[in-house]
This record gives sequence, structure tokens and C-alpha cells, in this order.
Amino acid sequence: MSTHHSSPDLGALLAAGSVPLLPFGAFEQHGPHLPLSTDTIMARALAERLCPVVDGVLLPAVEYGQTTGNDGFPGTLSLSFDTVRAIAGDLISALHRQGARALVIVNGDFGNRAPLALAARDAKERNGFPVLVLNYPGMTEAFAAIGTSRPAGFGLHHADELETSIVLAVAPEAVDMSRAVAEYPVFPPDFPDAEYGMAELGATGVFGDPTHATAEKGEALLDALTAAAARLIGDFLRLHPQDRTGDRTRD
Amino acid sequence: MSTHHSSPDLGALLAAGSVPLLPFGAFEQHGPHLPLSTDTIMARALAERLCPVVDGVLLPAVEYGQTTGNDGFPGTLSLSFDTVRAIAGDLISALHRQGARALVIVNGDFGNRAPLALAARDAKERNGFPVLVLNYPGMTEAFAAIGTSRPAGFGLHHADELETSIVLAVAPEAVDMSRAVAEYPVFPPDFPDAEYGMAELGATGVFGDPTHATAEKGEALLDALTAAAARLIGDFLRLHPQDRTGDRTRD
Amino acid sequence: MSTHHSSPDLGALLAAGSVPLLPFGAFEQHGPHLPLSTDTIMARALAERLCPVVDGVLLPAVEYGQTTGNDGFPGTLSLSFDTVRAIAGDLISALHRQGARALVIVNGDFGNRAPLALAARDAKERNGFPVLVLNYPGMTEAFAAIGTSRPAGFGLHHADELETSIVLAVAPEAVDMSRAVAEYPVFPPDFPDAEYGMAELGATGVFGDPTHATAEKGEALLDALTAAAARLIGDFLRLHPQDRTGDRTRD
Amino acid sequence: MSTHHSSPDLGALLAAGSVPLLPFGAFEQHGPHLPLSTDTIMARALAERLCPVVDGVLLPAVEYGQTTGNDGFPGTLSLSFDTVRAIAGDLISALHRQGARALVIVNGDFGNRAPLALAARDAKERNGFPVLVLNYPGMTEAFAAIGTSRPAGFGLHHADELETSIVLAVAPEAVDMSRAVAEYPVFPPDFPDAEYGMAELGATGVFGDPTHATAEKGEALLDALTAAAARLIGDFLRLHPQDRTGDRTRD
Amino acid sequence: MSTHHSSPDLGALLAAGSVPLLPFGAFEQHGPHLPLSTDTIMARALAERLCPVVDGVLLPAVEYGQTTGNDGFPGTLSLSFDTVRAIAGDLISALHRQGARALVIVNGDFGNRAPLALAARDAKERNGFPVLVLNYPGMTEAFAAIGTSRPAGFGLHHADELETSIVLAVAPEAVDMSRAVAEYPVFPPDFPDAEYGMAELGATGVFGDPTHATAEKGEALLDALTAAAARLIGDFLRLHPQDRTGDRTRD
Amino acid sequence: MSTHHSSPDLGALLAAGSVPLLPFGAFEQHGPHLPLSTDTIMARALAERLCPVVDGVLLPAVEYGQTTGNDGFPGTLSLSFDTVRAIAGDLISALHRQGARALVIVNGDFGNRAPLALAARDAKERNGFPVLVLNYPGMTEAFAAIGTSRPAGFGLHHADELETSIVLAVAPEAVDMSRAVAEYPVFPPDFPDAEYGMAELGATGVFGDPTHATAEKGEALLDALTAAAARLIGDFLRLHPQDRTGDRTRD
Repeated sequence: MSTHHSSPDLGALLAAGSVPLLPFGAFEQHGPHLPLSTDTIMARALAERLCPVVDGVLLPAVEYGQTTGNDGFPGTLSLSFDTVRAIAGDLISALHRQGARALVIVNGDFGNRAPLALAARDAKERNGFPVLVLNYPGMTEAFAAIGTSRPAGFGLHHADELETSIVLAVAPEAVDMSRAVAEYPVFPPDFPDAEYGMAELGATGVFGDPTHATAEKGEALLDALTAAAARLIGDFLRLHPQDRTGDRTRD
Repeated sequence: MSTHHSSPDLGALLAAGSVPLLPFGAFEQHGPHLPLSTDTIMARALAERLCPVVDGVLLPAVEYGQTTGNDGFPGTLSLSFDTVRAIAGDLISALHRQGARALVIVNGDFGNRAPLALAARDAKERNGFPVLVLNYPGMTEAFAAIGTSRPAGFGLHHADELETSIVLAVAPEAVDMSRAVAEYPVFPPDFPDAEYGMAELGATGVFGDPTHATAEKGEALLDALTAAAARLIGDFLRLHPQDRTGDRTRD
Repeated sequence: MSTHHSSPDLGALLAAGSVPLLPFGAFEQHGPHLPLSTDTIMARALAERLCPVVDGVLLPAVEYGQTTGNDGFPGTLSLSFDTVRAIAGDLISALHRQGARALVIVNGDFGNRAPLALAARDAKERNGFPVLVLNYPGMTEAFAAIGTSRPAGFGLHHADELETSIVLAVAPEAVDMSRAVAEYPVFPPDFPDAEYGMAELGATGVFGDPTHATAEKGEALLDALTAAAARLIGDFLRLHPQDRTGDRTRD
Repeated sequence: MSTHHSSPDLGALLAAGSVPLLPFGAFEQHGPHLPLSTDTIMARALAERLCPVVDGVLLPAVEYGQTTGNDGFPGTLSLSFDTVRAIAGDLISALHRQGARALVIVNGDFGNRAPLALAARDAKERNGFPVLVLNYPGMTEAFAAIGTSRPAGFGLHHADELETSIVLAVAPEAVDMSRAVAEYPVFPPDFPDAEYGMAELGATGVFGDPTHATAEKGEALLDALTAAAARLIGDFLRLHPQDRTGDRTRD
Repeated sequence: MSTHHSSPDLGALLAAGSVPLLPFGAFEQHGPHLPLSTDTIMARALAERLCPVVDGVLLPAVEYGQTTGNDGFPGTLSLSFDTVRAIAGDLISALHRQGARALVIVNGDFGNRAPLALAARDAKERNGFPVLVLNYPGMTEAFAAIGTSRPAGFGLHHADELETSIVLAVAPEAVDMSRAVAEYPVFPPDFPDAEYGMAELGATGVFGDPTHATAEKGEALLDALTAAAARLIGDFLRLHPQDRTGDRTRD
Repeated sequence: MSTHHSSPDLGALLAAGSVPLLPFGAFEQHGPHLPLSTDTIMARALAERLCPVVDGVLLPAVEYGQTTGNDGFPGTLSLSFDTVRAIAGDLISALHRQGARALVIVNGDFGNRAPLALAARDAKERNGFPVLVLNYPGMTEAFAAIGTSRPAGFGLHHADELETSIVLAVAPEAVDMSRAVAEYPVFPPDFPDAEYGMAELGATGVFGDPTHATAEKGEALLDALTAAAARLIGDFLRLHPQDRTGDRTRD
């Protein structure tokens, strides 16, 4: 799906009530077999599938996120907490000025959760603009139904069967299954209350078993994630109507 | 060209001295016929062509930039000056920690120039990490040689023959030539010393004549831009060696 | 338990390896029957009981927290996210300079979780100083074992049987059980993904049924919370030793 | 006196025109015989006595303040200037939103003076909300009348007869008079124009002679301080009426 | 020309529509023969000559600017980018509150360009207050007509014939022509795209040949610069009228 | 006295141990008879007289300061607290990098006191660089000896006999004695504890009686101020030696 909107076309879509979907990813290690952009690839794939279902309009993805927890692995390039918050805050303000009815952020990275939630709350408190941050709703249930390996624990799906299957489904050229290895780190007893970098927990950066991944499972997982997310977006838009006749002034 | 590097692969490339290339775009109006992501498309295309020439490694593009000057047109979504500066600053720090030899930013947006230059200077002053910001070196000369329409003036090529040709070359599906119109705004006598929004200057957002654009011209323009940029990068890397054996500590 | 340490006494305790415990509360509505300082009262009570168990030294509580979600109710006085983060960051730096081995924050307020986690991560990344943030570990299990009412859902215990019982145990003069009422708000289907203020969810500010609360249950709950937290602190201190011979310099 | 207000009770008090009193203390060395919380203890004691006199409502104290000047002594835990300013600014905004008529800050720490004054001025300039910062008005006169030792000079009463007497009056269990020693540092000739840390001036952290302190003197001192402060608050509230029918919107 | 306005006199001038002119200089090396304040001296001289021509009122100069590029030479004292931006932003806000019709900044320092442009854009976006930043319009043409030496290239006139002549015209006591030397640094091939400090480019800090400078040339250059700037200011004031009947409220 | 130092000359003076003197003024109303720059004029005059006495080197004055308290009068142009702090912080860092032994700030504006003190303390805490802020030491005594009118109270000398005499001594052309009027505002009983703008206190902006001012008194006052300040600077430099052989690195 394309993000190739012209200025008048996007203006018309927003005016007609289409809701903008913003994939927010990261550039962080995902083991030896997955690309550093895995979070972005997944978030964009989900956003693409959501668009036709929720009358959404796809925005270009943010390809970097807060991921200092993976700094110990090569190639990880992290933004700070404040930068992620600022990107979201700026885009929210811009969409508010442009008359959008709301914003849905499809987040693909754990470290983005806190700054994106903060940006959404700030938007609500400042001018009532509705922002929904999706953190893969329904993921645990979907994996329980479709996956065949044991999850790593603590809700962590990182470079595992779930993530690998989805990337196999949407960007198979980016995966090198010959390097896929399973790792089930033993979590220290004070995890996750104490702060741990990923490199302190495991050797490969994999949390789970990617060797069971298939593109078919990826498709099925995306279907399940799309269904769950679409329900949530539907509720959100119904419960948080925005009067679009209103202000286009600066926040 | 792909940005699908795995963690160990990117780590190995950086350790071997490949220089990372970061396209920095924007999401701003480019008339009725070009996509809002035109700056990103162009910057990425140039970065892709530069990679094999300069032993570069392509990083995912930043798809949003500082472009409040286009806020008056629908669909433009701008970051603030400080957010662009923060994104660049964070990625520079991350690359420094990861042992990269340098960073080349391929900038596609006028409004990004000042914050990117500031981030590059900050990097130099803080820890000597070399950052080169490319603002389409050689563009004026290339257009003079290849373009057939009159440029709009003040070095502005916006949704004109040059930009349209390049997007026709690399993303033709994103262009609707049937909507291409020429406009040569009359600049006020205190332009550019006084601050003007683009919507105060013209009606369509076009500065020049895109109707002369062709994909062939786009290819030729990209070739010329690539050659000029490659020379500059070569000089830069030669004149600014980085001791990569050194620190990987936090800045 | 007192926080009345003299300068040389506290210095000696820190030098001997006692771990400082900082209760971090809030000043937010807790229904008509509980005081606005309920979160502080509870966090301090837990910290007091932990001190003899973990060789802890009690610091004065921070009585205000991030609680804009309760702004819709009278009397709530909230700090911003950034202020909570700054308070924690300053105290962490100060304890690091004073040679403390670590810091344990006993957090009593949901809104403090994200800024305190961020401050703890910043400390780890900046100079390796270990900070553990306790968010009532074992609370769900303890309430399941001891409480007799149904919890409100989503892990929310707010002015309910659990919180009321604990305040009855440690500050009974602050509770007016004659005003205790039960309320089980119906959560909207996009909760908690969308941002909701507490006043949008319920009328009284109570989430659960405080009418079943007793001081005896409060004692039992505190015992259970203390046991769970002490185990966690023990693991944390064992796994994150700090070389206290080292730096006392500024961060 | 208790700070145990329920949400509706505090709301009713503010609506009826009671003025909130906020003790702002610090956690800094006060010699070997006084607790680190001496400034908080004193500010709270004064605020408690003021409440019935000025129709005040007591807020929980801020237990930490700007006190880097005492960093050279063990146990001192200081906030930064900006954090003190932010705490005050947030609480002022919150009280303004909650419809309070004004705020009186009872400050107990020298280092808090500048950031609290700045926060008060900001409040006045932003929305006219009246804030009065009390820095022990009448203290010099009260000590001249009641104290029997010589003051240390420069208006400094630190761990001396005045402070010790007041803590003896309100928290005698926190004082160890057996460790009380007198010290009269010789101030360098460029004090206080040049910046000096307290540890550069004296060995014990005491500025004056605490050995003359008694609880009776403390009571008398508190009476005198209360009278002076009450007069000032009365003038302030009379001269700075707030239209409480007005805005409850965000600042 | 004096900046000695009394409060009522300046108020009357602004109310009558006189436009304030603010010279913004720097304190940076200008070779061995020119004073560190050269940029300020030149900007003030130009502003003084503009005042009678454009009905301007002269404000005191800002004597420091962003000039870290000259840090490698003795005596250079630089402000940061953000400080220059803050100074300009504060003075713009103040003039807006005071009812000025506009502001013209006469900038004398290259490093100030970006932060001053940003402050001007911020003012436009926030409340439409018109700010014009003059960066010696017409300088290249004036020097081509009047100067006799070769310029150093890249538009750089630093401690050269142009700058020396102007200082000789307005502050001859500040020049020591006996120390004037010519230097034509060889610019590296990646200049100015890569960041270079001035001390990396040349030995003396001179870029050009000051030995040809005379006070007569300085007068002629100032006449030419004044004429070009006056035309620009005239256009600016005509095209950007400000309704001065309006708000004097805070921005 | 001139601030016209060349780069090598200032470098040599700093290396030889001359101490830089920075006048920090303001641009605020001083009644109908004195210029808005009165604080700057006075601070510079004092700094000029100090230079030969203390082996000082004069830096250009900062002509704007924190003076929002005078915003109610025409023509006042104020910087914010944070901007004054940033200017001082930047110049302190720059002087530290340039190897200066210390900095003496000759402050002329009440509103600058807090931000300059903060900047001085920050410098001490960050790298031990000694900064002395002079706030007219000895002024009260000097006026008591030389002035003939009654001071306005609270240590306020604003557009009164003292200030007017000094400006008459050093810049008589800037004074219009025909407009000098006396005003003795009646201070409200909660002054200065509560925040008051100057325009809330008086009608003319004068606090005292300038009609008694003469240039002769101004000379005598400056002599007395110079003597007191020189003593203080002498003590300061003796007590705070800086090892100038040391670091020139960034702070």
C-alpha cells in the first residue's frame, strides 16, 4: 500500500473523515536472521491492512524509535525518549491544524510505548485531539492460537516465531532463516522491575524460537492482529468524535 | 536498494569502514501532481545511487522534516526545528557509539538545512565525530545542463521540472502528470529576507514548470547529482578520518 | 518509623551499605472516604515495614506525583511527568554523589510509573547507579488471597477494599468509612488504549468496593506486600552490587 | 495538624475561600544534633500554627529543596534549582485549575528562595494567580528578643539556637542535644558575594550556638513567627483578591 | 547616534510608528589588526545610518553572538545557538507587547543567521509580528564596486578590506593597520558542506587582504550598504503592516 | 575606556592574569528624565573605573537584562530569567575555555541578581571556575554619606538622586533634568514578599528624589563604589586562585 498522497488528495481524505494511521517503528537488533527494521516492517504491515477496514489513510512510517535497551547489540540506532515524544507531538499538532478527526499510531516498538502514551495524553489535555496508540492488541491471544513454540515470557516476542513469521509474510527477502536460532534467556528474579539491557539477558538477541516461523503463520497472525486492532479503532472513533468544522489554528 | 540489514551485518559493515548514508526527507506539499513525500523519495534515490560508489550503507529514511513554510497547503505535516535537530543528534550519537567512521546525511528538504547543520556542528564540537550534510550539491549546474524550463528563482526547485523528473524516474506511479501545472510566483521585493510561507507566494505550490519533466531527464539529473555528491563524500572521508579503534562510550 | 537522621548518622548508614528507600506518593482523589494522600500513606507504610527486613534507611516521602488523570476531581494536585522525572533524577544523582550503594523507590501512584522508570534507566545508562522502582509487587496475588470484594478490573485498585484496608491499618483517623461507597465503572471498549481521565469513567472516584475494608485486612495485605517486595529487593541488591569505594564526583 | 483531606472536603474548603498553605522544606545537614529534615519540620510547624489564624488549609510538605550548598556534608540530598521551580510551578497551576483563591508557600530553606520567587512571579505574569512566599518574616527580630546566644552573622541561622529550639519544641525526639556544639565560622571577606559551599566555611555545619536551645524558646519563637507571618498573609489576601468565579481552564 | 531614549520618549516613538533597529553583533577574532567587536561595530554603524532614512529608532546593540567557529582563536567569546535565539525571541516578544509595528535586526555575524532566522519565523508563526533580519544586503555588489583586493571566496569577508575599511571609517582608534596582513586560505574541497572551524582554515584569522583598506572606502561601502538595506526595509514595512491598535497582551 | 581588544591582545591579557570585567545591564524605564539604559551606563562606568585598579580587562556590556517588573512602563524591553542565565553561562564557559583566571560581573539590574548568582554557582559546581557577581557593594553606605535626599526604602535606588547623579557624571547628555520629579511610593504592607510590578507601586517610575542630583555627587558616588568593589575583587582573586596552566577543554 502506498503513502503517495498528493497535497490536495490527502487534504480531501482528511476532510472526508478518513483517519490517518502512523506506523511508528524502530531500528534495533532482531537477532542474526531478521532485519534491524523489523518493528517498522511489522507496524507498517499492520497499518496497511487496517486502512481499508477502518477507512484509514496511511502515513509514512517513522523508522526509528526509543530502543536504548538494545544498544549493546551492533547496528541498533536509538532515539531518546524525548525525541520520540517530540516527533509524535509535532505530528499530532500538525494533524490537528490540518483538520484531521483523530490519529491512530500503530506502534511496533516496546520502548516507544511510554513516550507515545505521554504524547497522546498531552494532546488530550491540550486541545482534546483524540490519539489512539496501538501496541499490537490481541497479540498474546493470536500467538497462543497460531504459534507452535513456547513464548519467551513476560509478553516478550522479540525475533521469535511471531515476529519472524510476520516478516516472512511481508518481506521475505529480508529474512535469513539459515541464521535463525532459538534462545530462551533465563530472566533474573528482579526482571522486569530492575532495568536490564537486552544484551545482559541473552547472547543472540532472540527471545523465543524463530525456527518454527512460516509466512503462512505470519499471514494468519496479521489477520488476527488486524481484526483486533480494527475493533479497537472502531470503538475509539465512535467514542471520540472530533468536531472537524472547528479550529485549524495553532495549538 | 534495501535497508534490510541484520544486526551483525550492519555491525560488520560499520567495522569495515562503510559509511552510513541517512536520507532525511519531509512530508510537504509538492503541488497537485507530486506526492507529499517527494523530498524523501528524492533523497533516498540519491542515497541509493551513492552507496555503491562511496562504499556506503543505506539507512532507513527519516520521512518527516521541518517544513512549516508549507503549512498553508493541505496535508503538509511538519516537525519543528528542534525535533529535526534532536533526531539527527540522537542518530549521530548512536552511530558514534556503534563505531561508525562518519555519517553522511542526504537531505531533501530546505527547512532541514539549519537544524541538520547545527547537529553536525554540535557533533564536531562534542566529540569530533564527522558528519557531512548534503544539500543536493551540483543541483543548479545539473538543472542548467539538463532542464529545459526556466527555474523559478532564488535556487528554488519545488515541484518543478527537476523534482518531477526525478520522481518520474524513481517512483512514476506516484506522479499524476495530468495535474501538472506551471507557476512562476512573483517574489516580493523583500524575499527571502522577510519570512514568507509558500502559500503566500503562490496558488498551486509549484515553483517552476513541471510539464517539461520526463523520467529520462530524471535519470540524467540523478546521475549528475550522484557524481557531484560522490566527489564531495570522497573528499570528506579523506579529509576527516575517524579513529575507529577508539571509544564506543556514551557521548 | 522515623526519617529523622542527622547528617553524620545517615552518612554512616550509607557508608555501611544500608539501602535508602524513597516512598513516592501523590496527592489525588481517592473517593469521598479516603484522604488525598492515600498513595503516599501506603507507599510510606510499605517502605517503613521494609526497612528492618532489607537493612533499609527510610527517606522522607515525595508527597506529590503525576496524577493529571484525576484532575477532574476536586483537590487533586498533580505534578507533570517531567517534574516527577526531575525529582527522581536529582535524588538519584545526590545519592550517587553521597556514595549510596543503590536506591529503592517505593512508588504508590500509577502515573509515576513511566517517569520513574525513565529516571531509573537514565541512571543506569549514565553511570550505572542501580535504581529499583517498586510498583506494589505481589499486589494482585495478595488481594486475591485476602480481599473479599471483586476488583474493578484492569489491575485498578483505587479507593477500594485494598487501599482502604491499608489506610485503616496505618492511618485510621484519615478514613471516614461512613462515606465509603462501592462503584464498579463500566470501562469503555477502547480502555485503556485510549486516554481516559478518571472522572470520565466513574462518578465517585472509587474503583471497587471499599465497604469490605478492615484494618486487619490492611495488616495482612501489608505483610504480603512487604514479603514480596523484600524478596525483590534482596534479589536486586545481590544482582546489582555497587562498588562504593569509587567515585563521589558529579554525574 | 493533619493534611488528611478527602477530595470533596478539600474542594469545599477551597471553594469557601480557605487559603492553601504549602510547607517547602529541604533535606540538608544541620550539624550532628539536628535531623536532615530540620527545614521541613520548621516550615511545617509554622504552617500548622498559621492555619487556624488565617483560615488556611494545610497541604503536605515538599520534603526536598535546593541545597547544593550543603553537598559537602554527608546525607544532604539536593534538588536542582529548576526542579524546585517546576514543583512550585506545577502546584500553582494545579491550584489555579482547582479554583483556589491564592497560595501561600511557607519556605524553610535558603536555597529555595530564588526558584520559589521565580515561580511566584511567573504565576503572576501568566494568569495573575496570587502566590506569597514566606521566608520566616520577623525571624531576626524574634531571635533578638528570645535568643540568648550571638547569631552567626549574615542572617544565617543554621543548626543554631533558633533552629534547635524550634525543633525541640515540635519534634524533640529528633534532636540529640548531647552532640550539640557551637561554631562561629569566620566568614571570608568576599562572602556572600562569592559562592561558598557550607563545608568551605565551617567544620560542623553549625552556624551559631545551639547549646542554649530549649523547647520553651522554640515555642516562643514559633509564636512570634506565627504572628508576623499571619499579619503578612492577612495583608496579602486583602490586597490580592482572586475572582474565584472565573476560569478553571488550563493555564 | 545615541540609544539614550527615556521611557516615555521611546514609547512615543513606537506609538508613532518608528521602527526599532537592533544591531546584533559578536565578539570574535578579526585578525591581529581589528577589534574582537568588529561585527558589532559594523552592525551598529549601519543601523545608525539607517535610522534617519527609514524613520528608525536605534536600540542598544547585542555585543555577543554565535561564533564557536572562531573558538580556536584567542579572545573569542561565543554564545550558543540557543542563547542567540532566546535573546532575539525575548526582545521580539517585548517589542510586540510594547506595541511596536515591527522589528529590524541588523545582523553583523554569520553564526547568528540561523538562530535569528528561526526567531523571526517563530514570531511570524506565533503572532504574526513582522521581523526582518538584515545580513548586509548588497554587500557583494558594494565590495565589487568599491574594493580593490580579491575577496577570499565563498562570500566570506572576514577581517579583510571590506571590514577593515568600515571600521576605519567609524572607529579608527580600534584598528592597528601596522598589524594588517593578507591571507587567502585554500579552502578544502568539502568546504563549506563539512563543518570547519576558522582556525582549521587559516593561520591569522584574516580572509582576504586588509592592507588595501581606507576610511574613504569604508564610508563608500557604508553608503552602499545603507542604500540597499533602506530599500529592503521600505519594502518590508510596506508589505508587512502591523495593526498597532491591537493586542499588547503576552504572546 | 575602550573594549577594543584585538584577538591576540585579549589573549595575551588573559594569559598574563588580567581579570575580565563584564558589565551586565538592562533596558528598563528610569522615569521621564533618565535613559532606558541607565543600568548599563552605571555598570559600565563602574567597570571602567575598576579596570586600572584591579588589573581588569573590560568586556563589552550586555545591554539587556531581566526586568519584567518594569514591563508596565513604555519602552522597557526585558529578557527572561533563563536568557540572562544562559548569556552568563555561555560567557563563563567561553572564558574558561580561553584560559581566563576568573570572571567579575558588574551587575547593574536588580532582576539579574538571581540568574547571575545561579550561573556563578553552576560554574563553581561544574568546573570550579571562579565568578564574582558585584551588585554595587557599598552602595547604601555611599549614598548615606553623599546623598542629600531620603532614599525610597527597601534598598531601592531607582531613577533617584543616586542613579541620576551617576548618569550626570558619566553621560550628562542622556539626562533631562527638566523632567526630573520626585516620587516616594507608599509600599503595600506585603511588599516585597508579594510580587509587585513597578507600575503597581508608583506613577512615574521614580523611587526617590532625583532633583538633588549633581554630577559632582555622581563622581563621589562612583569613587566610593569603586573603592568598595575593588576591595571585594582583591579579596576574591586572592582567595580563589585559578590554575591557569590547566584545562582549556570544553566544560
